[in-house]
Amino acid sequence: MGNMPANYGKDPAVSLAQEMFAIVPATGKANLSASQLKLLSGKARWIFRVGETGFPTVPTIAITRAAWEGLQAERQRRDTKLRTHWIACLFKLVADPSKPPQLTVRTSAGAHNGGLMPARIGIPAPTTSDESVDPGSALGKAIREAFESYGFERSWGGSRSSEEERARQIVLVQTTAEGELEQFLTRHAVTGKLGPAPAGGAPLPRLPDSVEALVQLLDAKSGRHMTCLVAVDGGKVTFLSARPIQASAAAELEAAVDRVQRKVWTAHNAVTRVDPTRIAQLLHPGIRSTEGILPIATGLGVSPGAASGVVVFTAEDAARMRARSRHCILVVNETGPADIEGMKAATGILTARGGMTSHAGVVARITGKPCVAGVRTLSVNAGEMVCRIGDREFRTGDRLTIDGSDGSVYAGALPLAQPHIGGAIGTLLGWSDATRQISVRTNAETVESALTALSFGAEGIGLARSEHMFFSPERMVALRRVILSEDEDDRSRAINGLVDYQTGDYSALFATMHGRPVTVRLFDPPLHEFLPRSDEDIEETAAQLGLAVRALRLRLERIAEVNPMLGHRGVRLAITYPELLQMQVQALMAGVREASERQSEPVAVEIMVPFVSTASEVAWVRERVNAIAANSGLLRTDRVKLSFGTMIELPRACLRAGDIAHMVDFISFGTNDLTQSTFGISRDDAPTFLAAYQRKGIYERDPFVTIDEKGVGEMIGIAISRGRAANPTLKIGICGEHAGDPTSLRYFSGLGVDYVSCSPYRVPVARLTLAQASA
Amino acid sequence: MGNMPANYGKDPAVSLAQEMFAIVPATGKANLSASQLKLLSGKARWIFRVGETGFPTVPTIAITRAAWEGLQAERQRRDTKLRTHWIACLFKLVADPSKPPQLTVRTSAGAHNGGLMPARIGIPAPTTSDESVDPGSALGKAIREAFESYGFERSWGGSRSSEEERARQIVLVQTTAEGELEQFLTRHAVTGKLGPAPAGGAPLPRLPDSVEALVQLLDAKSGRHMTCLVAVDGGKVTFLSARPIQASAAAELEAAVDRVQRKVWTAHNAVTRVDPTRIAQLLHPGIRSTEGILPIATGLGVSPGAASGVVVFTAEDAARMRARSRHCILVVNETGPADIEGMKAATGILTARGGMTSHAGVVARITGKPCVAGVRTLSVNAGEMVCRIGDREFRTGDRLTIDGSDGSVYAGALPLAQPHIGGAIGTLLGWSDATRQISVRTNAETVESALTALSFGAEGIGLARSEHMFFSPERMVALRRVILSEDEDDRSRAINGLVDYQTGDYSALFATMHGRPVTVRLFDPPLHEFLPRSDEDIEETAAQLGLAVRALRLRLERIAEVNPMLGHRGVRLAITYPELLQMQVQALMAGVREASERQSEPVAVEIMVPFVSTASEVAWVRERVNAIAANSGLLRTDRVKLSFGTMIELPRACLRAGDIAHMVDFISFGTNDLTQSTFGISRDDAPTFLAAYQRKGIYERDPFVTIDEKGVGEMIGIAISRGRAANPTLKIGICGEHAGDPTSLRYFSGLGVDYVSCSPYRVPVARLTLAQASA
Repeated sequence: MGNMPANYGKDPAVSLAQEMFAIVPATGKANLSASQLKLLSGKARWIFRVGETGFPTVPTIAITRAAWEGLQAERQRRDTKLRTHWIACLFKLVADPSKPPQLTVRTSAGAHNGGLMPARIGIPAPTTSDESVDPGSALGKAIREAFESYGFERSWGGSRSSEEERARQIVLVQTTAEGELEQFLTRHAVTGKLGPAPAGGAPLPRLPDSVEALVQLLDAKSGRHMTCLVAVDGGKVTFLSARPIQASAAAELEAAVDRVQRKVWTAHNAVTRVDPTRIAQLLHPGIRSTEGILPIATGLGVSPGAASGVVVFTAEDAARMRARSRHCILVVNETGPADIEGMKAATGILTARGGMTSHAGVVARITGKPCVAGVRTLSVNAGEMVCRIGDREFRTGDRLTIDGSDGSVYAGALPLAQPHIGGAIGTLLGWSDATRQISVRTNAETVESALTALSFGAEGIGLARSEHMFFSPERMVALRRVILSEDEDDRSRAINGLVDYQTGDYSALFATMHGRPVTVRLFDPPLHEFLPRSDEDIEETAAQLGLAVRALRLRLERIAEVNPMLGHRGVRLAITYPELLQMQVQALMAGVREASERQSEPVAVEIMVPFVSTASEVAWVRERVNAIAANSGLLRTDRVKLSFGTMIELPRACLRAGDIAHMVDFISFGTNDLTQSTFGISRDDAPTFLAAYQRKGIYERDPFVTIDEKGVGEMIGIAISRGRAANPTLKIGICGEHAGDPTSLRYFSGLGVDYVSCSPYRVPVARLTLAQASA
Repeated sequence: MGNMPANYGKDPAVSLAQEMFAIVPATGKANLSASQLKLLSGKARWIFRVGETGFPTVPTIAITRAAWEGLQAERQRRDTKLRTHWIACLFKLVADPSKPPQLTVRTSAGAHNGGLMPARIGIPAPTTSDESVDPGSALGKAIREAFESYGFERSWGGSRSSEEERARQIVLVQTTAEGELEQFLTRHAVTGKLGPAPAGGAPLPRLPDSVEALVQLLDAKSGRHMTCLVAVDGGKVTFLSARPIQASAAAELEAAVDRVQRKVWTAHNAVTRVDPTRIAQLLHPGIRSTEGILPIATGLGVSPGAASGVVVFTAEDAARMRARSRHCILVVNETGPADIEGMKAATGILTARGGMTSHAGVVARITGKPCVAGVRTLSVNAGEMVCRIGDREFRTGDRLTIDGSDGSVYAGALPLAQPHIGGAIGTLLGWSDATRQISVRTNAETVESALTALSFGAEGIGLARSEHMFFSPERMVALRRVILSEDEDDRSRAINGLVDYQTGDYSALFATMHGRPVTVRLFDPPLHEFLPRSDEDIEETAAQLGLAVRALRLRLERIAEVNPMLGHRGVRLAITYPELLQMQVQALMAGVREASERQSEPVAVEIMVPFVSTASEVAWVRERVNAIAANSGLLRTDRVKLSFGTMIELPRACLRAGDIAHMVDFISFGTNDLTQSTFGISRDDAPTFLAAYQRKGIYERDPFVTIDEKGVGEMIGIAISRGRAANPTLKIGICGEHAGDPTSLRYFSGLGVDYVSCSPYRVPVARLTLAQASA
């Protein structure tokens, strides 16, 4: 009951009287008390604010449900206190007693809601005291029905209504203004330009110039896109009501920057008031080029952006793909509430039925997923896991590209072009950097994604997964040769084959980052992700490695792991195969040398050991890294700034962070794996039970999306405090996917981390969120 | 330097003088200072103690390496302080100045060690002062060589020598006693009976009666089996030296009980002085019956007990089997130091070569593993993973049974008969229960193992893994039917098939335990452990389930998990398949009803939910368990004591133990899984890197054998303190394999747990260890 008037409940009649009052009297000012001002919600708030400025506004009374019910109860008791007050309120609507007005009854919900009663107009004002409180009168009926339309289960905020919230619901009683009713927006829904702008599908009506003052007034007071209702009578405009609407992310952003330029807001206002999740929705990729490529089908582009990926037909398969960081297109006949998890997990959505306002379209726009809907030539047979688009057949694993901006569908995975930051978003992010205290880096291992991240304002690379440099087919063969080697000699030869690739990759990455820090994580392949699985793949790999298929199968069986996520990976590889560690560090130093010859800045390289659980592992690797780095001769020059650190992904590493901190310059939390090990959940396998968990309310949120503060968060907190206590100069980062999630970022900010590292497209989100958290 | 004399290093000459002294002078008493007494180690200690009692003992000087080197250094400086003292010591050996004695030089190591210099006898006593300090004299040479034989790297304790330890090494100078030298043991090496008893392979010499007093004296002073050297001259016995030997576990135990009966020790002494790991070695199973079964080969039984299991040829395969809790026999031509890990992991060892004192025999006896060595008809081809015994061929996975008591080898897995507790071990454990404060329960799900555990003194069942009740082929089919069910109906039908088995099993188990607590863990099959893998197995299962092989493969693929250990298991099964939970609890209550009709005690059943990570999971299951239990009607009677708890196996559950404790009567730590998740190590997959980790000193100990105090231990400590703070009556148990490891048990005892639960054979070890920890 935090926001209730302080005297609520003390003298019920007096309190209830305070809950029905004229917010815009026909003459004079409303002079509301502090407790009355607190009650103003929804349209009532805007009507009062506009009326107060002196802009012509229809006389209006606000009455809460508590007050209305109190009035009815009093009537049963034959008491008159509230009745007297109510009649006084009604009297305030009347400017000219000789002309009793026609009345309008409106709800005053904070947001639009389909179930609410539409405004009831043309109600004759009560002519007697009795009529004014008679629930059977036209006014009484309209007020009662307006309250009923709020429903019981759901409050107007959309959340479950408490008794207190319900008591404070408001119904408005207005006089009827002269003239034509006209509706418009305060800002354009798509461009964000200051209005008046057309509302809904209707064209913008002709409006007197005085509307501009109203628009500016509402925009400044609300700081949001508003839809606005006025009566126009010749050149005279009377304000009736307004409520905020949800505009596109781009429009909101343009509006925010425009308000700063108009000096309605400070830059700081703009930075703190834009929702970072909206920023993410702006950064949609597009298809790089469609020259010479024809779409195989066209539907409605109901949610903008292009997406390509493998075809999936179920939410579970989509979740599985997401768990493996693979892009996928969810292909269904139409979507419904059961598909929401799958839509969130998919990269894009393609439906056979539905339009702009279909379930698919609405959810896709909310979640920022590209979506093409209503493709008439598409038919999906989910049972058989196959779909047809025209005369072509697609099965799980085949690839598609969709463009939610124009509704095109292409076969195969077309290259996508990445969005750029500029205009309003660039301006806003520039302002945001002024208050931000935590660095934002990116997870990237290719020059291309590093460039994307730089264009989004990344201040360094916080996670270059060295094993990801082997994702091209040719290199995959080289890596498989290492993993499948039979003995040390075999392995040494295979490893030597990797050095050249690595040196070139590192040198290019360092050069791209131009002296900004680059954190290279030592090899951490959970082996199974790099090995052939299908029969064809095994046959092909055998041929590439010059092995008999049978021999390859034998080796695959021998190194197969029951639980690869907890197996022979991370630092364990470096310790059991020291030659792999040596090759990596040598290639790194060679990359530094190459890059440093081409630039004036020293190369800032940070070597990071993954998946440690003991300080002894860190010590073992550090000794060898230091020796190899010293051997390179580079440390004696000013061409390199080398630092050494470790990734914290296991509960034991959190507990022993004090020991570990003595031996490192930095630690960086791998929150994906730390969530896996703290919860004992394999992200790959979670889809089979996670949906049931969320449905049954066991988990409030998916801990792989938003950091679990009470468990994983505490582990991180323990590690930070122990690490800093042991080594006050310890630098601390976050490099899991949570580093791109606003809720998690706010939490990390409170833990005092020095930097976060997220995927390139999330860099702007992190910049804005962290600026807000520091503000 | 904790044990060094307090004045060590202050006045070197005086200190060093204190480090060479007559421990048994020819006449009078030694009158050693406190710092000299502290220096006595190895034989020197026993010679002094026997001499002090007045038993005839040869005059003896002890000289430390520090003193000897000081004497030599002084000689270079031409100083005389130590020299004067040394000559005085030598003089104390002489009873009759007219007869300068022949001298003997001995080392004085605490334990026997192959590299030490054997006693050097018949050295003429020095005749001049110069000769007495001359390193080139016969005495000087013998003393120097005795010190050199201690070696540098290894101290006499077997651990790496520190400079301090080295300085304190002792060499003894004795006069030569008259008569024949005779050796004997203070107690029989096998039966533990008070001696004199034969030493080594030699028969017991004829000894005068006065030896008995010496034997009793040494046995009382040392409390150990000692080997003893005396000179016998007619009826006169002179004591020369003694050192402890390692007797068999049975002999040590008999001796301990005998000492109590002789009032040399109190029962408390016996309980605290017996090493619990020795107890474990006594509890060897034997072959139940060999009637009608002929061994396929016979070798030497070099380490007692019978073992059966699958054949493995390498340490890695043995470790893999152990990780899966499967018994295996390591079959090799002969063993060497590289095989120790494999021998520890194996259930039994079979070698083609070697005898009683071979590497295999020695290591097998130390580690308590049954071993048959020197089987001449055995030949092993490890490269091809095959061995031949006579004309039969065995490959990895074939089964063998060995009997290390008589050297027999049998094909197949013969049923084993379990050892019983009685005699000395029963007496000792009876005494131990008086001081023990922590209950000892067992992990058991069959009547047979429950009975074994009861015979070993188990006070209840702390972990009945309900899914293990399905390990018979017929039941496995029923369980597979559940796991592989396609939909809810399919699953419900399959589950109904399980009810009858369960009810009978539970009823029998409860009846066996006769009112003692039985903790039943709800279903927790990591799915992969219960599914067919080989082609034959898949074909057979398909036939049993009435499925096409192709359809079965498809289902197997669909439910295959990438990381089953972190997958759809434990409480996650109960929440996603509530019908499984319901069946289980109904069967449990039916089992209670059946058992309670046959006994007067109420059934004490504790339902335990596995693998939880959030309090919400516990709440969800508790609500349903309570409803089903209430429905049974049993709760209104006095026939059942029902409690509800959860297994703590995940770091997050440790952190949230406060929330969880509000909802449970007990928690029990599953330390195997908790070690897996805290370290991020799959026990199944660890063998590929764990050996390298121990070799390179990354891990001091295998954390799956001895609890990792600094990581997993802290997690347990956090959970206990938060759990108890939230619920002061919370009962706390340990039910991982660490509950059978003495070092871990001592640690758990310090954490204040209420009970531990270990495998039946480990119950006596836990009883003794916990008694010692409480003493």
